[in-house]
Order: sequence, then C-alpha cells, then structure tokens
Amino acid sequence: METKVVLDTLWVAFAALLVFFMNLGFAMVESGFARSKNTVNILSKNFIVFAVSSLGFLLVGFGLMFGDGNAFVGLKGLFFVGGADNSPAVDAAYQGVYSALSWASVPLWIKFFFQLAFCGTAATIVSGAVAERIKYISFIVFSFILTMFIYPVVGHWIWGGGWLSELGFFDFAGDTVVHSIGGWAALAGVIILGPRYGKYTKEGIKPIPGHSLPLATIGAFILWFGWFGFNPGSTMAADPGAISHILVTTNTAAVAAVLTASITSWLFLGKPDLGMSINGCLAGLVAITGGCAFVSVGSSLIIGAIAGVLVVFAVIIIDKAKLDDPVGAIAVHLVNGIFGTLAIGLFAQDGITGVATGNGLFFGGGFKLLGVQTLGVLASGAFVFPASLLVWFLIKKTIGLRVSLNEEIQGLDIFEHGNSAYPEFVSRKPVYHIDSVSHESKGGKSA
Amino acid sequence: METKVVLDTLWVAFAALLVFFMNLGFAMVESGFARSKNTVNILSKNFIVFAVSSLGFLLVGFGLMFGDGNAFVGLKGLFFVGGADNSPAVDAAYQGVYSALSWASVPLWIKFFFQLAFCGTAATIVSGAVAERIKYISFIVFSFILTMFIYPVVGHWIWGGGWLSELGFFDFAGDTVVHSIGGWAALAGVIILGPRYGKYTKEGIKPIPGHSLPLATIGAFILWFGWFGFNPGSTMAADPGAISHILVTTNTAAVAAVLTASITSWLFLGKPDLGMSINGCLAGLVAITGGCAFVSVGSSLIIGAIAGVLVVFAVIIIDKAKLDDPVGAIAVHLVNGIFGTLAIGLFAQDGITGVATGNGLFFGGGFKLLGVQTLGVLASGAFVFPASLLVWFLIKKTIGLRVSLNEEIQGLDIFEHGNSAYPEFVSRKPVYHIDSVSHESKGGKSA
Amino acid sequence: METKVVLDTLWVAFAALLVFFMNLGFAMVESGFARSKNTVNILSKNFIVFAVSSLGFLLVGFGLMFGDGNAFVGLKGLFFVGGADNSPAVDAAYQGVYSALSWASVPLWIKFFFQLAFCGTAATIVSGAVAERIKYISFIVFSFILTMFIYPVVGHWIWGGGWLSELGFFDFAGDTVVHSIGGWAALAGVIILGPRYGKYTKEGIKPIPGHSLPLATIGAFILWFGWFGFNPGSTMAADPGAISHILVTTNTAAVAAVLTASITSWLFLGKPDLGMSINGCLAGLVAITGGCAFVSVGSSLIIGAIAGVLVVFAVIIIDKAKLDDPVGAIAVHLVNGIFGTLAIGLFAQDGITGVATGNGLFFGGGFKLLGVQTLGVLASGAFVFPASLLVWFLIKKTIGLRVSLNEEIQGLDIFEHGNSAYPEFVSRKPVYHIDSVSHESKGGKSA
Repeated sequence: METKVVLDTLWVAFAALLVFFMNLGFAMVESGFARSKNTVNILSKNFIVFAVSSLGFLLVGFGLMFGDGNAFVGLKGLFFVGGADNSPAVDAAYQGVYSALSWASVPLWIKFFFQLAFCGTAATIVSGAVAERIKYISFIVFSFILTMFIYPVVGHWIWGGGWLSELGFFDFAGDTVVHSIGGWAALAGVIILGPRYGKYTKEGIKPIPGHSLPLATIGAFILWFGWFGFNPGSTMAADPGAISHILVTTNTAAVAAVLTASITSWLFLGKPDLGMSINGCLAGLVAITGGCAFVSVGSSLIIGAIAGVLVVFAVIIIDKAKLDDPVGAIAVHLVNGIFGTLAIGLFAQDGITGVATGNGLFFGGGFKLLGVQTLGVLASGAFVFPASLLVWFLIKKTIGLRVSLNEEIQGLDIFEHGNSAYPEFVSRKPVYHIDSVSHESKGGKSA
Repeated sequence: METKVVLDTLWVAFAALLVFFMNLGFAMVESGFARSKNTVNILSKNFIVFAVSSLGFLLVGFGLMFGDGNAFVGLKGLFFVGGADNSPAVDAAYQGVYSALSWASVPLWIKFFFQLAFCGTAATIVSGAVAERIKYISFIVFSFILTMFIYPVVGHWIWGGGWLSELGFFDFAGDTVVHSIGGWAALAGVIILGPRYGKYTKEGIKPIPGHSLPLATIGAFILWFGWFGFNPGSTMAADPGAISHILVTTNTAAVAAVLTASITSWLFLGKPDLGMSINGCLAGLVAITGGCAFVSVGSSLIIGAIAGVLVVFAVIIIDKAKLDDPVGAIAVHLVNGIFGTLAIGLFAQDGITGVATGNGLFFGGGFKLLGVQTLGVLASGAFVFPASLLVWFLIKKTIGLRVSLNEEIQGLDIFEHGNSAYPEFVSRKPVYHIDSVSHESKGGKSA
Repeated sequence: METKVVLDTLWVAFAALLVFFMNLGFAMVESGFARSKNTVNILSKNFIVFAVSSLGFLLVGFGLMFGDGNAFVGLKGLFFVGGADNSPAVDAAYQGVYSALSWASVPLWIKFFFQLAFCGTAATIVSGAVAERIKYISFIVFSFILTMFIYPVVGHWIWGGGWLSELGFFDFAGDTVVHSIGGWAALAGVIILGPRYGKYTKEGIKPIPGHSLPLATIGAFILWFGWFGFNPGSTMAADPGAISHILVTTNTAAVAAVLTASITSWLFLGKPDLGMSINGCLAGLVAITGGCAFVSVGSSLIIGAIAGVLVVFAVIIIDKAKLDDPVGAIAVHLVNGIFGTLAIGLFAQDGITGVATGNGLFFGGGFKLLGVQTLGVLASGAFVFPASLLVWFLIKKTIGLRVSLNEEIQGLDIFEHGNSAYPEFVSRKPVYHIDSVSHESKGGKSA
C-alpha cells in the first residue's frame, strides 16, 4: 500500500505540474493571437488568473466541489480545505468529508493541487474570448466567482459524486467540467461585452491578425505538452496500462486534428493557415479529453480528425454570427468540449482501460450512454451559461465591464497598466489619438 | 514485478514527454536562426512535422522498425501497431511480434509513444537545413516518407534486432539512429535544393543573420532540458545508477562544448558568438548521445570539449563548401552524430552502467569496437544518404521542391501561408517586389 | 530498500530537471526587463553561466560544500567529485566522504546533479543585477569563483554539516543558501559597478523600461513552474506527505504575493504594473523557499502576502538609494531571502512535515529559533558580501569590470558579441553614435 501511495503521488505531482504549465501556454496563444497594444493586459490577465483561481478554490471552491453534500453541491469542509480527511487512506479505510476523492491514494493537499490546476484552466479559457476590450478588474472579479462558485458546482455534479455521476455520465479529464464550462462562460462574456471596435463594420467582417505567431506557436506546443499531464494524469493513479493508452489516444487525436484542420483551411481558405493548425491541435486535444481513457487509439484518430474539421467551420460560423472571440476559444473549448463529451457516447468501449463505461452507440451499446452524455451537455450549459450571463451582467452594471472606446482604440496596455509590451519596437499600426472620443464612452459598436 | 512496471512506466512517460517537448526547442532554434519573412513557414513545418511523424510511425514505421523480421526490416505487426504483444511481460515471458523491445517492462503503447518521440526528432532535424526555400507540401511529403520508411529501416538494424546490433554496434540514445539519419537526410536535401538566393554571390559568402536570438536561446534551453529525457530515458527502465550517471555525462558534455565552442569562436571569429555557443551546446549533447551510458564523466568532458570545437569548424567548412544550412543542422547533427558514434569506440568502458560494450580503444579494448562503430556509421550513411537523395529528387520532379525566386525573395510566409509572423512590427529589411522575376522561376542560383 | 532508491531517484531527477529549467526562466525575465541593445549579452551570460557553474561545482565546489571536513569547509573528495562513496547506501550503512548527504537514498551522481542545479541558480541571480554594463568575461570569471568557492562555503555551513546546521539553523530549499548568497553577491556587484548611464541624472531617477514583457512573462511562468521542483524536490526523497504539503505552501505563497504586489502597485503607483506582479510572484516564491516544509498553508498565505508588499517597496527604496538593479534581483532574492529565513523563526510549526524544527515565535516557540535564523542571516551576509566585494574589486583592477561608456550607450551586443538580438526590427530608441566618447572611458556616472 505505502509504495502505491508514493507512486501515485509522484504521478499526480508530475501531471499537476504539467497542467499548471499550461497557464504559460494559454498566455502565449492568447498574446500571440491578439494585438501588441493589448499584450501587457493579456499577459497580466493570464498571470493573475491562476492567483485568483488558487485563492477562490482554496477558500471555498474545493469544498463546494468535493465536499460531502447533496446531489448538487458539497456542504462539508467548505472553508480553506478544512474538513476532516485521513488521505491517503482509500475506500473503506477513508474517513473524512471529501468522499468523492476517497478512491485516490494520495494525500489531500495534492488532490487539492491537482484539482486546482484544472480549475485554473477553466478560468483561463475565458480570458482569450473576452480579450482586447475587457477591464482588468472586471475579468479578475469574474474569474474569482467562476472558480469559487460556478466551476465547483458543475464539478460536483460530475466529479464530486453529484447527480450526473450517479446517472452514469462520463467525463474522464474534463471535456464538460473544464472545457465546456470555460466555453459557456466565455460565450456569455462575448455576448455581454460585444465585439471589438472595428471588427464588424458596414463593409463586412474585418480580420484582426494576431501580432506574433511565434508566441502563439510557443503556446500551442506548451499546451500540447501540458495536455499529456491533463489527460493521463486524470487517472490520479500510476496505472501503467491506462497512462500508456491515454498518452497515445491523446496524441493521436491531436495530430489527426492538426492534419485535418490544416487541410480544411488549405481547401476552404486557400492556404494552410498556421492559426488554424494550432486551433486544430487544441480542438483535437479538447475533443479527446473526455474519452481518452474510454476509446481505442483508432477511435481517437477519428475523433481528432472530426475535431480538426469542426473547429475550422466553428471559427467561421461564430465569426459570421458576430460573436467576436479573438482567439477562437469558443470554437476550441465549447464546441469541441461538447463534441468530445458526446463522442464518448458514440465511441466508448466498455472497460478498455478498466473503467466500466458500457459501450457507445458505434460499439453496440445503443443510445443509453449517448443519452446520458447529451443530458450532461445540456444540463451543464443550462446552468453555466445563464449563471455566467448574470455575473457578467452584474459586473457590467456595477464596476463596468468594458474599457472606453478611446482606450480600446489606443490599446489597453497604456490605460490599464501604464505600460507597453514592446516599448522599443516600431509598430506598423498607427496609434490612434482620437481626442474627440470621450473617455466615458462605453462599448465597441462600430457597424 | 508489478512495481517495476509502474516505476518503469513513470520514468518512460516522463522521458518521452521531455523528448516530445524538444519539438518546441527545434521550432524556436530554427525560427530564431532564420529570417522573419519565413518564420510562419518554419513554425508551420515544425508544428506539423510531429503530426506527420506520428501518423507515419503509427501506420507503418513502428512495425517496420521493431516488428520481428529479418536482419534488415521488421515484417510482423506492420500496420497500426497491430501485432500480438503481451507487454509488459518481459524476456522469456514475452509473447508477441515486437521482440526487440521485449526487454522493456512497460506496456506496448508507451513503447510506441517513446519511440515516436525519437522518430519525430529525426524528422525535425531536416527542417532546419532546408529552411527558407523549401515548399511546405514538399517538406511534409519528405517527412512522411522519412518517418514511415527510411528512419525505421536503419532503426531496425540498430535497435530493432537487425544486423548492426547483432555485430555489436552500440548507440545508446541515437547518435546514429536519430542524429545521423536526420543529418544525412538534411545533407541530401541541401544538395538537391541548392543554396538560398543571395547566400553565395560573386562577392563571396554572405552571412544571413537570424531574426531573433531570444527565440533561438529559448529553443536551445528547451533542447538541453529535453535531452535529459532523450539520453537518460533511453534506459527505458527506472535504473537509478544509469539515470544518475547519464544525467551527469549528458550535462558535462554539453557544458564542455558550450565553453569550447564559445572560446573557439572568440579566438577564431573575434567575438564570443551566441549562435556558436548554442550550436556548441547542441553539438556536445549530440556527441554524448550515443555513449552517455558507456563512458565516464571524465570522458564526457573530453567528448563535449571536442564537439564544441568541431562544430565551429564544421559550420565554417560546410559554408565554404557552399552547402547552405541556415541553422547549422548538418554540423550539429551529422558531424557530431558521427563523432559521437565513433567516440564510443574510443572511450567506452565495459559495464560502466551495466552494459557489456567492451572497452574502447583508449581503455585497452583495441580497434574491435571502434571498427564496428565505423562500420555502422558508413552503413547507415550508405543507405540514408542515397535513399534521401532519391526521395528529394522524386519530389522535385513531381510536385516540385523549391518555391519560386520571387516567393523566396519576398518571403515564404505570404506566399505559402498567406500570413505574416509579426504583422505589426516594422522591418529593417526591405521587402523586395521584383515583379520582373517570373513566378515560375525555380532555384536560387545567384552567383 | 531498493524500491525506495528507485522512487527517490525518479523524484530527485524530476525535481533537478525542473530546477535546471529555471535557467531559461532567469534568462527570459532578465532579457525582458532589459533593453534590446543588450539582449544578446544577457542571453549569452545566462546561457554560459550554467556551463561555468557546472565546471566550477564539478571541479571543486561540490567537494568543498558536501565533503567531510570541519565546521567551515569540506576537505575530503574535493576534486572532481572524486571521494569514496557507496551511495545509495544511507545513514549507518553509508561509507564515504560526503556524509552530509548520506541521508539521501539516491546515487552520488544525482546528488551532484541536483545540488548543481541549485548552485547554478545562485550564480544566475547575480546576472540580472549587473546587467547592461558588465563585461562578458568579467561576469564569467565572477561566476566561476562564486560557484567554486563562495557558494560552497556557506553551503557547507548550512547543508554540508557545518556550524550553522549544528546550531539548529533551518533553510529547507535555500532561502539563505541560494537566494541570499546570490543576492549579496549581486549587491556587491551593483555597488562596485555603479549605475547604468542615464539612470540617475540631475533631473532625477529615470525609469529604463524593459524591452519585452512577453519574454519577462515567459520567464516568470517558467520560474514558478521550476520552483515546484526547487521546493518540494528539496525533500530529496519521494515523501508523499511532504511533497504534497510543499507544493501547496509554495503555490499559496506565490499567489498571495502576486495579489498583494499587484494591489500595492495599483494603490501606490497608480496602475497594476505587470513587472511588479511578476516580481511579486518571485518574491513570494523566494520567501517560502526556506520554510515551505516547516509552516502551514495558512502561514504560507501570510508569508506570501507580506513578500508581495515587501518587494514593491524594496524595489523603490533600492532605486532611491541609487543602487541600479535592472531586474529587481536584490529586492526579490536578497530582501525576500532574508525575510523568508527569518519567517521560519516566526511561523515554524514543529514537525508539520516530520522535521523537528521546534516552533517559531508565533507558535509558542519563543525567540530561540528566530535567534538562530537571525544569526544565520547575519553570518552568511558577513561572509558573502565582503568576499564578493573583494572578488568584484580584484576583477575590476585586473581585467576590468565595466564596458566603455560608448559601448554601454550603443549596446553591449555589437561590441561584446558582434551581434544583434533582433537585426530586422526597427527600434524606437535611437542608436547613439557618440564618436567623441573615448572607447577607454570607464564607468557610468552621468549625474
């Protein structure tokens, strides 16, 4: 037993740190895909968001998600991870208030740290979608509420022993728990915020290219790397067979999606667009997150291939719907988070790494699993989307949500942070000085 | 036994992920050493190459390399890693078609993933040498063939139980298998492609400085970091003594080479050139890759010191020979891959980490080991170089190999990808608009 | 026993590599916070410093620090880690000359590699403080002496079985051993070197903004990531409880400091400055380094919160004292290294992860522990600061310490390295051509 605890702890520590490192990945993808005049703001958001998440999840979030309670929320050990717990004792030997994690034979604090890394990911997904026009403080406030309340509640339903897990809903590494929640929150933010100035004009939709594809590529590789902690680490146990299987399903989905997204953009947009290759990779990774332990390597190839096509069209459709998401976060995380969750219902093979999921539709399991997966998608959206809308709306009505038009045009960096990301490089983009625009002016309607 | 499987799996997973992360290192070194007008193309190549390698190695490469067969190729379990296999059973207990890896007590999929990471490295080596003039699609096609056929064949000879391993050829972490193969393929590509426009002129050899030394340095550190998976991970077992020894021989060779390359460039080029320090580091790492488990820490210091000097002169000589290698890949990977392979024949000490290599020339073993090592160097070159020449030539005659002169002058990013790496920064380099140059014009002869 | 050796080796290898990776973090923070004209020089220093440290620590440093000897220095096994040693045998079974590390059940070479990574960190701290005016060769010479003699001596006092450890001084992961030593050496260098040209003028203190906040942010995230090896790895054993505890104290201090530093700069400087958020994070990490295993998670929140405030005011005060530290290394590493060492005397709780520290002042332990901690702070400063002053002074009087004023104004990159970090980007900063300034001119007094 003791050796198992050590092995599991080493594995969970390693995986948790890879997931933590994804914070840098998100910061780089988002910075690279946005303009240089907003880069300090984006870096600041991505830097502080893990601090905010850590505090929120430490104060209340972890207890709300994993504390014993009812089908909807945790009610015990709520404050400061303060409940009774004799981890790493497991199963019958476990005595404490975090029963939902009692199967993991690691100490409590590393359970917390691992779960925190996932919680932080959900919050950082939002950051990209609302970039280039949100007030710094408003993003901080939203992240705090997301990680302290919204994320833990749905997390409780699925990973905390709540009603969805009781129904037989499966989400191995968080397609719904992390990616869809982040995606719904992002979609709500995009709607309430409105598009960036100059994006949707009378002349049509204007592309706003990111300022640094090297930064975006650094980010993409780091996320790909970190996902090898995210998915295989969700075993929370040093299980050789499962880890090996998940490493390969994860990578196979990613590379299939890189290829299909590149080909799709080549065929439909005329060139193999690097941004699409990158978002394809992330889409493939998201799409396999939920089912990485439940599907075969062959199925992961198909899931990834679909995700790579899906993300290209999702980016285009979301843009046509005038939902301005500068980095494609909604197409990557929400669309493929939903697809990945449903794909479990299609491709699952019972016990392929030892988990009794039952078979999915394509493997003779009928619609049972697919039905529950669909219910989970709908239920989580039905909670997170309106809850996020409400929080964004309340922030807008109190401290305000969006920077002034003048600030947006001249860049958030100077106004919000008194700083410039690259003070020495000469920019091709004119720095506007629209003095006639009132500082109080809100919103970015330009069409 | 069971605990050993878990320990070995954790170690191999950790090492494989470090090697995977080297993809980012190569992408950054290569981007940094090339010009900004070709940066999107370079990032795209480095991003997609692991996808291509993964597919090629999954479809056929792994079986060809590790499947049971004859002395030259694997013949069983060729398609989609589909052969029988009861890993992690080892040695006598092993039943399956991948006998060459039956000594490793880890599941099959992680054997695949670990070996895939190495295969991907060989492909990415090529990318740097052919940068700034190769067509995107042509590089993709070559990489696919390299990782599906060329790499696995030589790999079978050395790591797959083939004729070179039978003869007593040693290559611990891939000096020949990975670095020389990549290097020979790169050399062939450089020859068929010809130099970049403006590189070798009537006025002499023109240096073409890279556009970002910060990116190159990021890449170098990441490669150094990743090599601590590449070399010690090639134990494919959690062997404390070997891991510890290899960590130190690897680092010692690297640092000796950083110092001697820096000093050599200081003495012969007048200044301590950062590019040379970086290539020195990589040269030291390459040179110790084959022998890291077979030589002492003292010997690793000498091997690294030689590598650091070697790479500086190799870069100069290759340039004088008008072989245009923008990043020094041939000097680093081919020259030092060969040197490192031969160094085993000179410095090996029998059983220093438990492997019965016999002693090298300098430790009383005579010319026996050195002879076999030399044979391996010659044989792998005699296969990979002409095979690569043929493939490059066929690509040239079918889909074409090189972008048009106009495209090369104006940058591959706009023409190949419809994109710019840094759309906001003002460039010191004029963007040429040679409308008189035909788009059909091929090749880059400028002298 | 054997399994424990394997587990401990895996953990130490993982942690050591994370600490090694911090080299890239330091390179990026420092590059980002300095000007583009000196970027090649900064990258070169950060790249070569680990090579220099490796050589110095291999040749003499490790033996001086961990070899058996007297209360002040190691005297056995001094040269090339050449002493007798039967690691991984531990405690009573250990036979060898490195008794101070005989408690760690891992092979000798990985003990060396792990300790080397820490030694390299101390040297790299200095680099940032002396940036933008020090001669390349002079920094190399200082680093060599620091890692070969100065660092190992104090290290012997505290971790090598010397007099401070005998007195009951505690420093879990190196608040004094690494951060204060680096900080004192940096302070001495800043004093002997003098400020950069144009920093302290008759018109007052001129801020000199760094040229790339993306690079600085990359560095900060990598350091944060690496610190999860630095602190939990200092167990040098795969102890699940301690690792879990330390991961959370480390992160909690970091995030508390990010938040308080951001708030402090918002309140006192008017804007949430990203540079202050970054230095806050590093300050929190430094402040918890010494006590991460000895204090509760709640205490770590308080320690981090204090560190975040402390670093903002320390940066301002050090600047007002005309000590020109371009990256804030002294405020981060010296001030918070001292604070963190003393915080053990305040917040320690006996045996919280199994180490018998006794309680600190706030937990009923009285002034005993605080007294010893204070003595350690004073003693290490009393040795390192004058020793460093002497070495800097001797370098100044022999090979010279500072580049010429002309070189400093035009940038170190061209003069020291014959190179430019970004040869293609157009800079907003004029490149001075003060031909009237003598090349021999020394120093940077401009006021």
